Formats: sequence, structure tokens, C-alpha cells
Amino acid sequence: MTADAVRVPVSLGERSYDIVIGDGLLADAGSLFRAVLPKARAAIVTDVNLANRHLPALEKAFLAAGVEASAIVIPPGESSKSFEVFELVVDQMIGGRYERGDAVVALGGGVVGDLSGFVAGVVRRGMRFVQIPTSLLAQVDSSVGGKTGINVRHGKNLVGVFHQPDLVIADTGVLDTLSEREFRAGYAEVAKYGLIDDPDFFAFLEANWREVFAGGPARGHAIAVSCRSKAAIVARDERETGDRALLNLGHTFGHALEAATGYSSARLVHGEAIAIGMVLAHDFSVRMNLMGPEDAVRVRRHFETVGLPTRLDQVPGGLPDADGLMTLIAQDKKVARGALTFILSRGVGRSFIARDVPPEAVRHFLAGELGAA
Amino acid sequence: MTADAVRVPVSLGERSYDIVIGDGLLADAGSLFRAVLPKARAAIVTDVNLANRHLPALEKAFLAAGVEASAIVIPPGESSKSFEVFELVVDQMIGGRYERGDAVVALGGGVVGDLSGFVAGVVRRGMRFVQIPTSLLAQVDSSVGGKTGINVRHGKNLVGVFHQPDLVIADTGVLDTLSEREFRAGYAEVAKYGLIDDPDFFAFLEANWREVFAGGPARGHAIAVSCRSKAAIVARDERETGDRALLNLGHTFGHALEAATGYSSARLVHGEAIAIGMVLAHDFSVRMNLMGPEDAVRVRRHFETVGLPTRLDQVPGGLPDADGLMTLIAQDKKVARGALTFILSRGVGRSFIARDVPPEAVRHFLAGELGAA
Repeated sequence: MTADAVRVPVSLGERSYDIVIGDGLLADAGSLFRAVLPKARAAIVTDVNLANRHLPALEKAFLAAGVEASAIVIPPGESSKSFEVFELVVDQMIGGRYERGDAVVALGGGVVGDLSGFVAGVVRRGMRFVQIPTSLLAQVDSSVGGKTGINVRHGKNLVGVFHQPDLVIADTGVLDTLSEREFRAGYAEVAKYGLIDDPDFFAFLEANWREVFAGGPARGHAIAVSCRSKAAIVARDERETGDRALLNLGHTFGHALEAATGYSSARLVHGEAIAIGMVLAHDFSVRMNLMGPEDAVRVRRHFETVGLPTRLDQVPGGLPDADGLMTLIAQDKKVARGALTFILSRGVGRSFIARDVPPEAVRHFLAGELGAA
Repeated sequence: MTADAVRVPVSLGERSYDIVIGDGLLADAGSLFRAVLPKARAAIVTDVNLANRHLPALEKAFLAAGVEASAIVIPPGESSKSFEVFELVVDQMIGGRYERGDAVVALGGGVVGDLSGFVAGVVRRGMRFVQIPTSLLAQVDSSVGGKTGINVRHGKNLVGVFHQPDLVIADTGVLDTLSEREFRAGYAEVAKYGLIDDPDFFAFLEANWREVFAGGPARGHAIAVSCRSKAAIVARDERETGDRALLNLGHTFGHALEAATGYSSARLVHGEAIAIGMVLAHDFSVRMNLMGPEDAVRVRRHFETVGLPTRLDQVPGGLPDADGLMTLIAQDKKVARGALTFILSRGVGRSFIARDVPPEAVRHFLAGELGAA
């Protein structure tokens, strides 16, 4: 393993596991896998693009460590988080005679991870699972914490299971192959951890975001801080009955925007949606007299500075009206008994779970934002 | 509740629940539901036949207790344990805006229970779940223990989750509406609990099976003993990493027979398949010098007496040869690293888990059984 690899433990009793973070770790994936799953076969799930980019290196690493591996390649993009692709991968997994003790290995971003985690959770009522996230978003968010799922016509991630991985291998070097837009989108989730409860980390990012984008120690540090932050929240509340909802900062608005744009990555990717969502959450918090405008301005400025969208009129192709967005918000799964649960804020790093947010207040706020656009 | 209702607790820590058993309990389903899930809505899943037979009574009981309920009706039969019907029910569940705190209520036999339990396990990453089993098989087996799933072309129950119900309501009176064949098939699972580790219960059944079939206290007793037996095993080993495999007595052979007959209930239903499977398991145990022939004869005689099939030549439409059956056995999910795990026996009530059973011995045995047919 590279000398400077960092291990972030996720403490979940008998479901505990490590996130291993470091530059160049893909070359060590075989031995890292073997150390955790001494006898398992590996069923790699990846998409066409990532197969071209990273599969040969991973297969070489598995071969060197004596891990029997084969690959199931899915089409790239959010549209693969569908019943159709889910059924296809499940069928190939069973047809390939993978057993409960074998591992589904997700080599990819959030789409590959969410889909193949769901597959791992249901084939033979649960197989082993290893995440090798290749996007920044997946490294700091979707690969950690056990949420898996697919989209249905009513919304995103409405079908899935909690299925914890046995190991997460985050090679920070593979992020060099991301487009600027993809990296930026993932960065929105990094900044989120500062905004939730770590104002010092947000200040660090304001000062050092260029270094995080460039790579090297600042990037590794930002990823490790993010994973530690998420691991702590997940350890407190694995199944999102309480605190874990904090991770949804910006996501209620964000999911509605993703649904409104038909999950078209040409129009809006997840990180962009939640960047706008986080800015809206802070602006809405100001409107609700929960915080002064200064910190909301700071949030908007930082996202603008790094090049993330922050306003509704930056969503290409237009949006539904406020009522239309409210319908999408109501259909999001973070709904309890008809009342809206939002993550609001009292300032940078002071987010909290607000239950019973009056839908009318949200609708008025959105109507104003759309009118201003 | 009827005065003579019996509660069998299933002890699984925070996932513990009760099986309530009694004659006429369907009329109390609303209050029983409310006591466990005070605020939940009920999404009843049932099939066309059962909807005709029992849905009005259940809806009346829910209405009386102020439980908001609606029904999703699926086609009857094993073919509903498919990806297609699964996707359909999931879609209706989400379209009906059921939330995490709402309950999927399975009103039906094993098919309805397995399918809707899987739906409950994955919609919004897990909803509440209530089982109202209407077949003997479901009351003593499939509704207890949290196994859910659907079939795929490679085999039965290969896709699913462990998802424990919050309540099981077993109305022993509804079993009067079963056909003789259906009741007999369920009885095979009742007898299984005697064969696993309760020789006294098997002797009770040999002496009182007519009363169990007729209804009344003997039937209630047999169901309660069966549920207690299953609950004890599940409490010891929820996820089948050990003892729970005992419940598969007769199932390795049985599943192969079901697969070989295309899951056609016209040819063979689950209980009939495992009746033959249990007889084969005891005969094979004799062949392996694990027990004398007397107890195997006793098992075969009792199943013959109640009218269950006990021989391969009783499977209508013929069977594959021994190699064909071995392929089906190998594809069953109770396979670990290529070795066969069988539940074998040292006598009535003395079953045990045999790992590393030589496939050759099984193949020779089956070839003999098929040749004798």
C-alpha cells in the first residue's frame, strides 16, 4: 500500500468497515480485498467508460493477489439506476454462480455504487460488497454509509436497501481523470460537510479549494475529513431515523431539481443540483429568520467562486413553477406524515433538522426565487 | 380478540414481534394492527382469489379500528414471484404515497408474503410489514422469520432480503377455506418441525393428524408448536449462518423438484416437493449409514397416510435424470464453495446439518431412486 494511505473506520458493530484513502491505491486493490475477504470471488460491476479507464488496472491488481474476478459492464449514466439494468445485473450475478460469500465490487461513481450495492443486498438475500469509488462524489458520499438504490418514475432512490460494504478503496489519483465539471459536482458534497457542522473545514476550503482541485495533500485531506464526517454521522444513525438526515442538506431542493430535469446529466448533475439546493436552504433559512444574510452570502459566493451553479435560472431548459416543484418535493422520500422535513441552518456549520416546515412557506420562497430568475 | 388466541414471540432484539394465533382473528386484525403500528396506513397486498375470499372481512376490520387501508391485487400463483410483478407492486406502493412508517400487509399464502415482504424491504429502503397468512404453509413457515424474495430463471427465492414483520396474524379459521391438497401441502411443513428436533410432536401428529386436518384445538396446537419451533430457530440464527439451515430439511431435494417441474402448481406444490424431499433426505441418511431404516419407513408411511407424495415417480410429467437434478441442486442457494450442504438425520427428530456431502453420493442415490421409479 502507498505509504501515505489513510484508514477511516466506519463503526457499525459487526457491520464495521474501513475506508482506505490514498493516491494510487487501485494498484493495491487485490491485497486490500484479500485482507478483508480471504476467499471471495469478485464480481466487478462498472460502466463502459470506467471499464476503459480503470478495469485493466483493477484486474491486474486482483490477478496479482490471486483474486478470481470477472466484470459486468453496464451503460454509463443515471439511466442505469433502473429496474431494467438492476434485473440484468442480478441475472448475470446469479448466472455467474456468485455465492453469498462472494463480493460485488463496484468500480465507478454513484450510479455504479448505488445500483451494484442494491444488487449485492438482494442476490441470495445478501452478498459481500466492496466499493472502489472513482468519482469525488462517490468517494466522499455515496460509497460510505450503506445506502443503495435505484430510481423509479416517481423519483430518485425510492427503491433500495441499506447494505454496508465490507471495504471502501478510495484512490484519490483516479480523480485526475475526471472532467472539471464532474470534480466540481463532487466538491459540492465536500463543502457540505463544512456547512453541516464544521465551520473550520468550510474556512479551510474557502482558502484552499484550488489545491483541492489540483490534487496532492490538500485533496487527500479534504476527502479524509469528508469521509470521517460522514462516518461519524452514519455511526450515530445508520438507518436515518435521526441525525443522518443532516446529510440531506441541500438535497430536498436538489432532488426536486434533478427530477424536474429528468435526471439528465446534460442539464444538471447531482452535485450541481445540491449546490443550488444548499444555497436555497441557506437563503430559505434567512427568510425564516433563522440566520442573518451574511453566512448565506458566504455560501453562495464560495460556490460561485469554484464555478458551481447557485441559482434556479442556471438550470438549462427551464423548470416547473413553484407548485410543480412542491409536488416533486412532496414525492421525495424525506416526507413524514405529510409534513416537510428540511435541513435548515443557523449559520455556516450550524445546520439542523427542521421538522414540520410549513409547505406554504417553501412554496412562497420558491415562487420568489423563480420570479427573480 | 378471541379468548383462546395464543401469542408466540419471535425474539430478535429490536426486530422482535409476535405471532398471534387463533380462530376468527381476521375480525380483530384492525385492533391488532393498531396496537403495534398506531399511526400507519395499510397497503394490503393480496391475490385475486384471496381478495374474493377474505378482503372484505379484513377491510371491515381495518375500518372499524380506524386504519386507512387500500389494496393491491396481484395474479394468483407462484408466477407472481417475478421481477415483473415485483416492479408493478413497488410502483403502486410508491404511487400510493406510502411512507416508511406505513405498512405493507400481506394477505395471502407464501407467494403473497414473500413478494410483498420483499417490496416492504426495499420501498423507501424499508417499510413496516404485517403478515396475515391464509395458508397453512404460510402460517407455520413462510410468514415467520423474515425471509422474503422472488424467483428468477435460475431458481427459486434467489433474489430477496431479510425483512422481519412487525406482526403476524394467523387466523386458523381461514384454513377451512383451503382445498384438501393445499392443507396437506402445508402439513408437510408442520410435520417437518417434528422431524427436525421434536420426536414427541411427530408422534402427536401420527396419532392426531385427522384432528389437525379437521380443525379445532388440535389444529391450533399444531400451528402454535410449529411457530414456536420456527421462532426458536430463527431467534438463534436470523440470517442462516448456522442452525437456521435445519429448516431446510427436505428442501434441497424439494427445490430441485420444484425447479424441474417449472414451479407449476398443477404438477407439484412446495409442500408436496418437500414431502418427497424429506422422505429422500431420510432414505439418503439410511444410505449414508447415519440411521437405521425403521425411522425412514415411519416418515414415508406417515406422509403416505395423510396423502402426501413420497416418491419421485409421483411427480406428474416426469423428471430430468440424476445429472439434471444435480445441476438444479448445485444452483440452489444453499451451496457454499461448491460443496453440498444437506440436512440429514440420525432418526425421527434428530436432524442435523451435514456440510461437505459428496455430490457423487447424492447423484448415485438419485439415479437409484429414479431407476426404481
